[in-house]
Amino acid sequence: MTLWGGRFSGSTDERMKRFNDSFSFDWRLYAVDIQGSGAYASALQRAGLLTEDEQQAIHAGLEQILSEFAEDRFAAHPTDEDIHTAIERRLTELIGPAAGKLHTGRSRNDQVAVDLCLWLLESIQRTHDHLAELQAALIDQAETHISLIMPGYTHLQPAQPVLFSHWIMSYFWMFQRDQARLHDCARRASVCPLGSGALAGNPFPIDREALAADLGMSAVTPNSIDAVSNRDHIVEFLFCAALIGTHLSRLAEDLILFSSPGYRFLQLDEAYTTGSSLMPQKRNPDSLELTRGKSGRLIGNLVGLLTVLKGLPSTYNKDLQEDKDPLFDAVDTLNMTLPVVTGVIETMLPNGEAMNAALDTSLLATDIADYLVEHGVPFRDAHHVVGRLVMQAEQKQVPLASLSLGDFQAESPVFASDVEDSFSFERAISRKNVPGGTATEAVNHQITSAKERLADHQGSARSSSE
Amino acid sequence: MTLWGGRFSGSTDERMKRFNDSFSFDWRLYAVDIQGSGAYASALQRAGLLTEDEQQAIHAGLEQILSEFAEDRFAAHPTDEDIHTAIERRLTELIGPAAGKLHTGRSRNDQVAVDLCLWLLESIQRTHDHLAELQAALIDQAETHISLIMPGYTHLQPAQPVLFSHWIMSYFWMFQRDQARLHDCARRASVCPLGSGALAGNPFPIDREALAADLGMSAVTPNSIDAVSNRDHIVEFLFCAALIGTHLSRLAEDLILFSSPGYRFLQLDEAYTTGSSLMPQKRNPDSLELTRGKSGRLIGNLVGLLTVLKGLPSTYNKDLQEDKDPLFDAVDTLNMTLPVVTGVIETMLPNGEAMNAALDTSLLATDIADYLVEHGVPFRDAHHVVGRLVMQAEQKQVPLASLSLGDFQAESPVFASDVEDSFSFERAISRKNVPGGTATEAVNHQITSAKERLADHQGSARSSSE
Amino acid sequence: MTLWGGRFSGSTDERMKRFNDSFSFDWRLYAVDIQGSGAYASALQRAGLLTEDEQQAIHAGLEQILSEFAEDRFAAHPTDEDIHTAIERRLTELIGPAAGKLHTGRSRNDQVAVDLCLWLLESIQRTHDHLAELQAALIDQAETHISLIMPGYTHLQPAQPVLFSHWIMSYFWMFQRDQARLHDCARRASVCPLGSGALAGNPFPIDREALAADLGMSAVTPNSIDAVSNRDHIVEFLFCAALIGTHLSRLAEDLILFSSPGYRFLQLDEAYTTGSSLMPQKRNPDSLELTRGKSGRLIGNLVGLLTVLKGLPSTYNKDLQEDKDPLFDAVDTLNMTLPVVTGVIETMLPNGEAMNAALDTSLLATDIADYLVEHGVPFRDAHHVVGRLVMQAEQKQVPLASLSLGDFQAESPVFASDVEDSFSFERAISRKNVPGGTATEAVNHQITSAKERLADHQGSARSSSE
Amino acid sequence: MTLWGGRFSGSTDERMKRFNDSFSFDWRLYAVDIQGSGAYASALQRAGLLTEDEQQAIHAGLEQILSEFAEDRFAAHPTDEDIHTAIERRLTELIGPAAGKLHTGRSRNDQVAVDLCLWLLESIQRTHDHLAELQAALIDQAETHISLIMPGYTHLQPAQPVLFSHWIMSYFWMFQRDQARLHDCARRASVCPLGSGALAGNPFPIDREALAADLGMSAVTPNSIDAVSNRDHIVEFLFCAALIGTHLSRLAEDLILFSSPGYRFLQLDEAYTTGSSLMPQKRNPDSLELTRGKSGRLIGNLVGLLTVLKGLPSTYNKDLQEDKDPLFDAVDTLNMTLPVVTGVIETMLPNGEAMNAALDTSLLATDIADYLVEHGVPFRDAHHVVGRLVMQAEQKQVPLASLSLGDFQAESPVFASDVEDSFSFERAISRKNVPGGTATEAVNHQITSAKERLADHQGSARSSSE
Repeated sequence: MTLWGGRFSGSTDERMKRFNDSFSFDWRLYAVDIQGSGAYASALQRAGLLTEDEQQAIHAGLEQILSEFAEDRFAAHPTDEDIHTAIERRLTELIGPAAGKLHTGRSRNDQVAVDLCLWLLESIQRTHDHLAELQAALIDQAETHISLIMPGYTHLQPAQPVLFSHWIMSYFWMFQRDQARLHDCARRASVCPLGSGALAGNPFPIDREALAADLGMSAVTPNSIDAVSNRDHIVEFLFCAALIGTHLSRLAEDLILFSSPGYRFLQLDEAYTTGSSLMPQKRNPDSLELTRGKSGRLIGNLVGLLTVLKGLPSTYNKDLQEDKDPLFDAVDTLNMTLPVVTGVIETMLPNGEAMNAALDTSLLATDIADYLVEHGVPFRDAHHVVGRLVMQAEQKQVPLASLSLGDFQAESPVFASDVEDSFSFERAISRKNVPGGTATEAVNHQITSAKERLADHQGSARSSSE
Repeated sequence: MTLWGGRFSGSTDERMKRFNDSFSFDWRLYAVDIQGSGAYASALQRAGLLTEDEQQAIHAGLEQILSEFAEDRFAAHPTDEDIHTAIERRLTELIGPAAGKLHTGRSRNDQVAVDLCLWLLESIQRTHDHLAELQAALIDQAETHISLIMPGYTHLQPAQPVLFSHWIMSYFWMFQRDQARLHDCARRASVCPLGSGALAGNPFPIDREALAADLGMSAVTPNSIDAVSNRDHIVEFLFCAALIGTHLSRLAEDLILFSSPGYRFLQLDEAYTTGSSLMPQKRNPDSLELTRGKSGRLIGNLVGLLTVLKGLPSTYNKDLQEDKDPLFDAVDTLNMTLPVVTGVIETMLPNGEAMNAALDTSLLATDIADYLVEHGVPFRDAHHVVGRLVMQAEQKQVPLASLSLGDFQAESPVFASDVEDSFSFERAISRKNVPGGTATEAVNHQITSAKERLADHQGSARSSSE
Repeated sequence: MTLWGGRFSGSTDERMKRFNDSFSFDWRLYAVDIQGSGAYASALQRAGLLTEDEQQAIHAGLEQILSEFAEDRFAAHPTDEDIHTAIERRLTELIGPAAGKLHTGRSRNDQVAVDLCLWLLESIQRTHDHLAELQAALIDQAETHISLIMPGYTHLQPAQPVLFSHWIMSYFWMFQRDQARLHDCARRASVCPLGSGALAGNPFPIDREALAADLGMSAVTPNSIDAVSNRDHIVEFLFCAALIGTHLSRLAEDLILFSSPGYRFLQLDEAYTTGSSLMPQKRNPDSLELTRGKSGRLIGNLVGLLTVLKGLPSTYNKDLQEDKDPLFDAVDTLNMTLPVVTGVIETMLPNGEAMNAALDTSLLATDIADYLVEHGVPFRDAHHVVGRLVMQAEQKQVPLASLSLGDFQAESPVFASDVEDSFSFERAISRKNVPGGTATEAVNHQITSAKERLADHQGSARSSSE
Repeated sequence: MTLWGGRFSGSTDERMKRFNDSFSFDWRLYAVDIQGSGAYASALQRAGLLTEDEQQAIHAGLEQILSEFAEDRFAAHPTDEDIHTAIERRLTELIGPAAGKLHTGRSRNDQVAVDLCLWLLESIQRTHDHLAELQAALIDQAETHISLIMPGYTHLQPAQPVLFSHWIMSYFWMFQRDQARLHDCARRASVCPLGSGALAGNPFPIDREALAADLGMSAVTPNSIDAVSNRDHIVEFLFCAALIGTHLSRLAEDLILFSSPGYRFLQLDEAYTTGSSLMPQKRNPDSLELTRGKSGRLIGNLVGLLTVLKGLPSTYNKDLQEDKDPLFDAVDTLNMTLPVVTGVIETMLPNGEAMNAALDTSLLATDIADYLVEHGVPFRDAHHVVGRLVMQAEQKQVPLASLSLGDFQAESPVFASDVEDSFSFERAISRKNVPGGTATEAVNHQITSAKERLADHQGSARSSSE
């Protein structure tokens, strides 16, 4: 028995049925579907459309179905075209005709809409938590190795010395912005569409605000036509996930590079590497390569749903069923990837020696230019002076610091013997003491501020979806 | 003369120069680049790195360059590889060596980063305004035709009667969510990266908070490595643009359909249609088809930048220059499309007669089921009863309302003669009187609320970027 | 026991293992993996690296494993990280140490590469077949209703009369191009990478050409570094799938529109529609809406893999494991969607009456202009004359054909009474008798040619992958 | 004067006009539009619809317009909504009313369709040529440095020694597949849509085959409805471009890595690097980073057009105007990027010393395992033996080759003193002498074959579009 058979004389094509049915994947919504139905039963009772007894029977039945799912003993029927049908069918078996009253004024359109909101809010919370654990691991590494100096690169070419802790904290802030975006997304997902019917609104005097409050949501949708086909919050989550994936791919790229033999700044723990079926010596950073690759599917999911929505007429169209697979896949991908990356970060070992070996005095060229600036030379001129010194050192095949004072003065008479003080990596670091700079003091301040944010948003994340 | 020539002995390949140069498109940043440099000069002066005179000379020079651009008489040189180089070169011509001090502690990396933030904030404001005008046009149409009844469709099949005003207001709320997303994006774009240097932070005692305040920005970036390669706010804007484009594509689809000969619910103004080079009778909704098509490029821009960012090592890499074209294109596309759609909405004429002709009593089938519900029949049973009545009417080839009371009672003895009261489109409309429903009262309430939001966010949009 | 444990002292993190393992999805490659291993065993034997006995043992073992999979009784172990490991592990259980010789000179890199080629070739063949069935259904409808006339639309506005059979055949040719693209893709997938080792080539004197021939492939890869990370054929297939999906989405859009109440040119069979949980009268074209929506995931899959490949260093990187999910999903999606669409086409009923009712004489405006052209008026002038006549008819609210001869002559003295012959839909149709035109004769010719192509490519498709 | 004004009473909104007009970008089609019109005029004359004189006047007029464009002195009018209108308007000015006959039986729909085919065919030819130059540069580098040995990497971890020439040739074959795909695309773009009218076919007895032949095209479109909205060849080209972009991004990644200080295997010529505005010592591989970034826009263009096509009703819809920008952008991007990459390859210097320094005997672990295999040990066991040896060497912090024979024999008694012969990078290289392997002989063979292919496809590319 389908929910809609009355006016049909023929039967559904078998391949069509398989094509159309969504129970094979939307069963994952069981808990939120039951939650939504429970709240709706209460709303119907408050509106006088269910007796107290009927309401209690429905709640008891739903409770039992919830256990059946949770304990993996829910028996699906071939006619269960989706999770909503399956639960209604089972409820009818359990409590009889009263089950048929639960759909009063409700359509699968507003039912699935609210289910998705609830499921999304939970998923955002879980993603929040996974991200926070990763952020905590980044802070830990930064604190443990607060003053290791490494070459900073731009364009993958040596640029200026930076603290290892500063580098690793740069990822904290990317994920912090992701947290903020997830939080904003949760706010928009917390608007309750239930009570919108199929498209025109509910004809019975349901108290929608009370219903929303029962479900822990913060507002009700203001237009029923929009409500039943609004998937903005899902696309927005997929965007957040794609951007998280992009950040993870950049982190993975850095870690793969810095643990490669050309750098060796980091050693990955064996637990996160694998070997080769052919080459006995290999230890490959598969965890990070997969992480980098996962950004592809996350972006693909986003594109997929945007394409589904493009040009769709208003209200519900079945195309929207294609929102679930990308959403489920994005959530699963993040749930799987984030803890692995957290594990990688927690267990990796920075190699201070290798970092040190890679520090070349040409990294201090800008500091030499700054020396001239501090002695009154306009920066642009100073830059050219030092550029010529760098070229000279390169031609002589010596480090910049090994040029003689005479060489320096030949390019600019402003140089005096104290220029040699500028050839200190520590000094170069400590000079960058503005907020956000790489000086140890600034990084310590950064870490303190990061810890506060971490504490904050965990609180707020929870409140936003409750 | 380039900014970086000192250490180079050879010269740049000519094709490489064309490939690398960005002046041909990034000249659009001239005003924000000058704004950023002006604020930076003040910061240098406050930090004692420029004299009062030097600062004034720089400000005067920048002012003049601004006029030259604004009046379209800025003379570019072949060596102007980007807008930053061009302005610095011109400033040197105008005020001499003092211009060379402006780059003290500053890199093109933090310079272009802050330019993009400022440009983006302005663009968001403009998009806000264009969206608000479109929203106002939607409200106008809703108010003017508050009680026109049209068939509501789901799956492009007739579902239930709805108010035309309810349908058109459904788009208001999509754009309202877009406004909220833009607002959140602006908040994140309002964090000032200037003072981050190339990647390690500024070595001079610049007051970054004061600098941010001068630029009307609300905070400073907490990590210089992240700051110089953070393009999150740009990707986020591209996402907002893609979703706005998707909403516009759905509106366009509805309008194309409803103005097509199969529906004729709307007549588009000639000013927004065009003819055919071959077929003399044609009047084509080109404006709306192009609008629908523009969603493609907006999604393409988003994908493009996400792909650029994927797997990029941290800090600045030249790949990031590929952020500008998609950003500029997305802003231009919205600036061009939104006013046209606003014009279409403002000038289109709803055709009440055609809507009326399309109202069929099968649209009231749910109301008949509700009649049974109100007489105690569980909805699921009522649904099946009415399903059979619909099938009967179809077989007899008569409207549902033309079945006799006997026919009704044959399916369910609960039917009495007052069932005929349910065959009223007006009554069906007025029953959906929950918040968000299609009852006239509910829609009026919706419009009031929409006007308040419109007034609100225009205020807040302004404040967010100032 | 992993394939690569020797040099590892620690163990793999449990979450990492789940993250890394691919057996949960790549078990689908079992048949092709066994096929590849069988051929490789023969090659080893021919090169003197396996004895005849060892080879026979391996073949027998593989045969048994194939049955175990086919009969769904293959017992997986927790250490089976992928299908290759699982089969090698099982083979060792079955035949002992000889199994360990199968990996001589072979790496999982070239093993998985050849598996994917073989699996892809099979999938292309299946897609070919599904497409051909759909094409046959289109031809059937065209032949059965060869001379039904319907309005042709451009911009969804009435343009010129066309044959229903001409319209439906337009889809035949889209799919015909898809067939050609698949064929080209198969050609490129038929180049055998086995014998490339991990990246450097096989150190043993394997006869790669014979190996390729054993596997029914047409050539061997010319560079081992390229061979192990080449996924071009998979991306190319995903592109073909995305374009097929786009064609299907256009067909679905047409069918949804033409079966909607605004048109009613087609009636979809009940077997491919579903009802509503709320509205008893609904019959929704879910099959077609889902089909339209599936284009999203197909495009998403393509984008996903392109993003994975972007910026990847050469040779094998684990990111490439992300090729399988999008490939499997695309193949499954096509295998599921195409037969449903074929069913929709086979069972739908064109409604000649509704088409006829929608024919308006303004559709013949171009024919009236052509009348003038045939009497020597330049087309551009004729177009303007008829444009004014159309406007006149519109203002008088009469059909174009109802204007008097005087009205016609007032706009152009060239009109004579025989202009009324032009007001014939049949005549308008029959005039378009160039190749590809909508005249019945031309469409019959088109159908004949389509049948030939269909016969042709089925043959060639088979030959390309065998 | 527009082409379609007759039936319009009002005028077009000014913003709408700007939105709708495409002349600002489609003027680039001028030469192919003129080519198409010239051929169409001949066809009309052959069909008796133009006199010999009219035809000659049209050809002369078109010729003159072509010069005006080529010499940059074509004067556009504000009413020129697109290139087709502009040329027809100018032709009328030049030759009077005969110009109005050129549109007989032709619509902008089939006109723009053929223009795009012709423009695409030219662009494919140009891309072919640029790719071939890049391929030639790759071959040159391979030949010049045929026997340099470098570490081969998988997962960015050292794997086995390979020839530098083998590595660089791996890119030859990626581009070779791109050439093949472009060739297939050209075949499909060479089907002439002219003669399809607006959608229904041409009502005049035009000889379409002769017309196609005149335009150098190989066939005529078989269905006019399909022909006017078929953009498959454009999407297919965008796919080819996206995949070329992906290949270029991989090459760029390799070159950026291998020229970075962690590797130094290559030195890029100064002509293809740039400096830093802040850091005097920098030399950044901007050319390659931009190249890597360009893959983003190429993928974005593909996604954009696929999204435009998704769900579009059949025949021409104005959304299709959005095909041009992505096509033009993709062609421009390739035309700009490919020569730069060719320049990078031509001028870069491999650094044999740095490669040599990076060769570690653990790269020969597989060869040691192969030693055991050759002495009868199953490979899987050999792999474990060598894995333990690698671990031992690592623990002792000595190269694998420095373990004593005793150490070797402790793990496997099969080892004898001749195992030391296996510690030769040259020997490891020369053992991979299967087709596609890295042995010098195999690479020489590969280069010979590459040169043949290069010669071949240049011939065939030309023939395909002529």
